[in-house]
Amino acid sequence: MKYEDAGVDLAAAEAATARIKKAVEAARTEAVLAGVGAFAGAFDAVRLKAFAHPVLLATTDGVGTKTLLAARAGRWRGIGHDLVNHGVDDLLAAGGWPLFFLDYLAAARLLPGVVAELVEGIAEAARAAGMPVLGGETAEMPGVYREGAVDVAGTMVGVAERAELPDPGRVRPGDAVLALPSSGLHTNGYSLARKALAEVDLEAPRPELGGERLLDALLRPHRSYLPEWRRLRAAGCLPKVAAHITGGGVYGNLPRVLPPGLGARIRRGSWEEPPVFALIQAAGRVPDAEMFRVFNMGLGMLLVYAPEEAARVKALLPQARRVGEVVAGEGVVVEGVDAP
Amino acid sequence: MKYEDAGVDLAAAEAATARIKKAVEAARTEAVLAGVGAFAGAFDAVRLKAFAHPVLLATTDGVGTKTLLAARAGRWRGIGHDLVNHGVDDLLAAGGWPLFFLDYLAAARLLPGVVAELVEGIAEAARAAGMPVLGGETAEMPGVYREGAVDVAGTMVGVAERAELPDPGRVRPGDAVLALPSSGLHTNGYSLARKALAEVDLEAPRPELGGERLLDALLRPHRSYLPEWRRLRAAGCLPKVAAHITGGGVYGNLPRVLPPGLGARIRRGSWEEPPVFALIQAAGRVPDAEMFRVFNMGLGMLLVYAPEEAARVKALLPQARRVGEVVAGEGVVVEGVDAP
Repeated sequence: MKYEDAGVDLAAAEAATARIKKAVEAARTEAVLAGVGAFAGAFDAVRLKAFAHPVLLATTDGVGTKTLLAARAGRWRGIGHDLVNHGVDDLLAAGGWPLFFLDYLAAARLLPGVVAELVEGIAEAARAAGMPVLGGETAEMPGVYREGAVDVAGTMVGVAERAELPDPGRVRPGDAVLALPSSGLHTNGYSLARKALAEVDLEAPRPELGGERLLDALLRPHRSYLPEWRRLRAAGCLPKVAAHITGGGVYGNLPRVLPPGLGARIRRGSWEEPPVFALIQAAGRVPDAEMFRVFNMGLGMLLVYAPEEAARVKALLPQARRVGEVVAGEGVVVEGVDAP
Repeated sequence: MKYEDAGVDLAAAEAATARIKKAVEAARTEAVLAGVGAFAGAFDAVRLKAFAHPVLLATTDGVGTKTLLAARAGRWRGIGHDLVNHGVDDLLAAGGWPLFFLDYLAAARLLPGVVAELVEGIAEAARAAGMPVLGGETAEMPGVYREGAVDVAGTMVGVAERAELPDPGRVRPGDAVLALPSSGLHTNGYSLARKALAEVDLEAPRPELGGERLLDALLRPHRSYLPEWRRLRAAGCLPKVAAHITGGGVYGNLPRVLPPGLGARIRRGSWEEPPVFALIQAAGRVPDAEMFRVFNMGLGMLLVYAPEEAARVKALLPQARRVGEVVAGEGVVVEGVDAP
């Protein structure tokens, strides 16, 4: 890690470096053999020997143009949570459990305070997932980035027992599709949202949002479903397959985990759509189908279970909603929404 | 992976997707259980069970503003090699051996041909290292990136036996410092190089470069030292510690692997400096100390050995040069260069 390269104002840079070290240290676990300052982070993997057949899982992702709203609000901590939680949810959908995280932060010029707040957010979310920040890189590239804009990307590595990986081959017509609620847009659809809301005051309190400002609703961090997953695992009740609803929405993501020849029917109205989506839709006159193609619409994670297990899952996770079923045929249909 | 999102011209996008799939497929190994299209890549790690004490190593890095020269030349394949080989060399210096790679490509607008060439370069270099491309992400963010500029970052995960990790505690005064030659700037110092060469014709053949154009010399890919490392391992002759000379040059990187109380004395003239550095220095009137603080100056990787082993290493690696010694005291001195 070269966060120390990011600053210019020496006092500000030193204060930021101290904050970063403290945050990364707080997320550190006993498995970290080498972290900041090493050519590569080193993670003690001796516990993988206890797996019957260990599989490593890895995912790289960014948070898209949500950073432009963060820059506008001057609030970066949530972007750190977004980056980590997006990775956690991708990993969970793939059947993995988090081991460690690495980040990449780049801008025309990285302000030490921004870097510190971002890394604090990253480290907080990583710590909540029991995962250290094993490494990272910062880059200042005035010729590449627009003034004031920041890009962040992160890579998460996790582990799974091979026999416990989700298996699309076990999915059957009639299986229940359950949804865990999203906190809002998570990290997808910000280009459309910004376009739709270009003429709208983001800073005024909104009665439709219970008095919240649109800016705050838009910046609400991506939820991690790790607590729910831990509860499901403890009960021996992990889903057959799960789909993290990101770019492409339910249409793009649920089919990724269904076998050929199976699709799904989703019933609109069977879950609560966060009101921020209706505000975006009205402001931008966005058709329903496009809303469902771009946004998660409140469906943060979809889990597929045999129908007789659905009641047990709902008892374990009261916030889960049964939103549809697996059906014969390809593709996802949302009842009441025109096909995209 | 969502490379399919990168294009707009459908035919061009389809051609690019086909090239990308072919390239990634060629780098695929039997260990890949899930790659493109999955929420996370899955890598069969059963061979880690055979380690006495496995350690995972991971590094995230970019290639800095070398991408601006690539954009100017319209040549992206080498940037893919840069990204992978930089990671390989970081991993080797940390004692790791490559397992898999993930990439992140972002721009205001990603041209399908550029993405295809980048991923082909990444996959070629990964394949040469025996490592699959397990995942990746592309992002188009017009509000974040300058028009025409591209940023790339990559994360590599490797493995080591804990007892074989490099150990600064074994370094002694009098140990030999050997250098493996770089191919040029590798991936560091491009902001200074571009500034120094702002008024210089990069496209004219240069007698100092044996008739090569400066643009080509600047774009020459980062070398991977994996072939050398394999030879050293086969001979049971891995270094006590090794330093990959990246940003910060020899002054910044060699001390990272020396224990407190030990420094190094490097003798200028004991290795060949690629002539591109003299051209940059002359054009920008850059002081010697700054050259050594920013560039590798031909020292791609430094290896520390007991003095009696140096001859054996030079017999194994004829291109290796003995460039200095470990000495008592902190810091690195390059004889004939003012302290930075």
